[in-house]
Amino acid sequence: MEVDPRISEHARILVEHSAKVREGDRVVIQIGDYGRELATEVYKESAKRGASPLIVMVPSEALRGYYEATPEEYLQIFPGHYYELVKASDVVIHILSEENTRYLSSIDPRRIIVRSLATKRIADERLKKRWCVTQFPTPAQAQEAEMSLREYEDFVYSAVLRDWEKETEEMNRLRQAMNKTDTVQLIGDKTDLTMAIGGRSAVISDGTHNLPGGEVFIAPLEDSVDGEVFFDLPAVRYGKEVQGIRLKFAKGEIVDYSATKNEDLLGAMINTDEGSRRLGELGIGTNRGINRFTKNILFDEKMAGTIHLALGNAYKECGGTNESAIHWDMIKTMKTGKILMEGEAIQENGKFKWEE
Amino acid sequence: MEVDPRISEHARILVEHSAKVREGDRVVIQIGDYGRELATEVYKESAKRGASPLIVMVPSEALRGYYEATPEEYLQIFPGHYYELVKASDVVIHILSEENTRYLSSIDPRRIIVRSLATKRIADERLKKRWCVTQFPTPAQAQEAEMSLREYEDFVYSAVLRDWEKETEEMNRLRQAMNKTDTVQLIGDKTDLTMAIGGRSAVISDGTHNLPGGEVFIAPLEDSVDGEVFFDLPAVRYGKEVQGIRLKFAKGEIVDYSATKNEDLLGAMINTDEGSRRLGELGIGTNRGINRFTKNILFDEKMAGTIHLALGNAYKECGGTNESAIHWDMIKTMKTGKILMEGEAIQENGKFKWEE
Repeated sequence: MEVDPRISEHARILVEHSAKVREGDRVVIQIGDYGRELATEVYKESAKRGASPLIVMVPSEALRGYYEATPEEYLQIFPGHYYELVKASDVVIHILSEENTRYLSSIDPRRIIVRSLATKRIADERLKKRWCVTQFPTPAQAQEAEMSLREYEDFVYSAVLRDWEKETEEMNRLRQAMNKTDTVQLIGDKTDLTMAIGGRSAVISDGTHNLPGGEVFIAPLEDSVDGEVFFDLPAVRYGKEVQGIRLKFAKGEIVDYSATKNEDLLGAMINTDEGSRRLGELGIGTNRGINRFTKNILFDEKMAGTIHLALGNAYKECGGTNESAIHWDMIKTMKTGKILMEGEAIQENGKFKWEE
Repeated sequence: MEVDPRISEHARILVEHSAKVREGDRVVIQIGDYGRELATEVYKESAKRGASPLIVMVPSEALRGYYEATPEEYLQIFPGHYYELVKASDVVIHILSEENTRYLSSIDPRRIIVRSLATKRIADERLKKRWCVTQFPTPAQAQEAEMSLREYEDFVYSAVLRDWEKETEEMNRLRQAMNKTDTVQLIGDKTDLTMAIGGRSAVISDGTHNLPGGEVFIAPLEDSVDGEVFFDLPAVRYGKEVQGIRLKFAKGEIVDYSATKNEDLLGAMINTDEGSRRLGELGIGTNRGINRFTKNILFDEKMAGTIHLALGNAYKECGGTNESAIHWDMIKTMKTGKILMEGEAIQENGKFKWEE
């Protein structure tokens, strides 16, 4: 069986563009249940360049079994060998590839949080490396996206296999526009929202840490958000979908909210802490290979013709100061709306003004 | 889908009996292409006991691609992150599970040797840990064994899922007999071979480092082997089978040899170095769950009613002194033969004298 050439190309982009693998690099490739083919291609591309690849597999049933079987007191145990592995590495490529997106649904989230805190040093160590998260097309994600596996493969590769230099050029254009802007206004279906971004730094997602990349994001001034916004796409949390979300802001804070489904979850999230009532991020999707919502945030937030707002924690590299235990992205299509910067429409009905 | 309960039992034996996993242990589970189900069960059994499991996967196409793609000068590069992982671990469980047993056939063996030497520190480090090698039943191994996968599963589990305490008892009986013996004589089809083992220590394979276990082995005195032996089973090397091997020994050294197939390979092996012309091991199989030859040395050498002789390097723990770059096992069925110790038949037609 010949490997799908798109898998080889995906691997080449990961190794060359995202992780910039070079001679002597020690590379960790983490996969879930699937992703062996992509990991194998990444392995070969790394070897070619004189790097040392190693594949770590975390089967979903193993992780689920771990949470089920591990006595409470053992959840705190630090997996020191994994830490040493990551510490001694230069590159960590994480290939999402679960056979089932809901495998942790029935696990008490407290157990997962305890474990996350106990292993935080490993997560922190990974962020010091050249790291990238990507997706291998699986039947489970195809199912979430309401596609066949073959259709979903086409979708993933049209998002991932792009000319990232050209994409970066377009994103830079948007970034520069945002960096010159004091006030952004979003106008659309049941939506008229203004916010200030003056003095903040826009950041582009150019395929380095996320593949696909394709968004420019910034942290709005914490007290500046005013008006109403309606999200036509569901926001997902803990395997639950909150639909028909409407938020009303005054002086940066949410003063009213509603949802047509799972409104109680929305309320709980908004009231997590002080910071969760404010916006931490405004993101604008630019990836034209992503033309539909697939319930996978790695893709959804990059979709061209959408914006997303995140409640909660702001990214420090944008100069944001909002702090919260949550960072919850909500996505809105702008096919019938406008993004105004200093009153000028930089995007109208999903098209940037510099597009044909 | 329910996991085959034999997989869970295999995992329990590995964790409890072979590796003796306990609280705080850092466990590395290495798999090939398959073996995810067994690795998952080992993961859960480890987690239950307060150990930290981590799965490393080495797909055969990745390793083959590595050997194919890596420039000569890079073969020497030391994978330091893998070394740190092993060094920081307490237990290494290696699950053989290739999708294809011949995946390295066309790779120049020199490249494999260069790589083995460059990574020897990792292999040495593993031997300092609680380590075990086992087999997950794969279609490729079933094919080598000329069975269907279902039949091969039955075969593997009948070899692996044994009462290892009872097996150890029987092996201890044989070990004690060997330790009291000066001279062993093998009599059988075209075979009459004597050797001295006095002063050497017999070692049992009780399922700790090999699962299945089931052999007692010793290093004969280097100058003592005399007579002729015929091997009815093929000896496999570099994917080639040498059939109908006859060896003639005088004062420990091979003075004549022949084979009905691949005699030239036999000759090349015998003439590797000084030590490859002498025996490094006499092993006696005791595992009654293994009732046929399957071209997998992990099983074949444990088969009840067989002996094996290895040309070349002797195990130090037996007190052997023969040194060689090779250790090549050749297996002989004893269904129509005798093993004499001090002239007394300890086994006749494949049955030990203490068996019913």
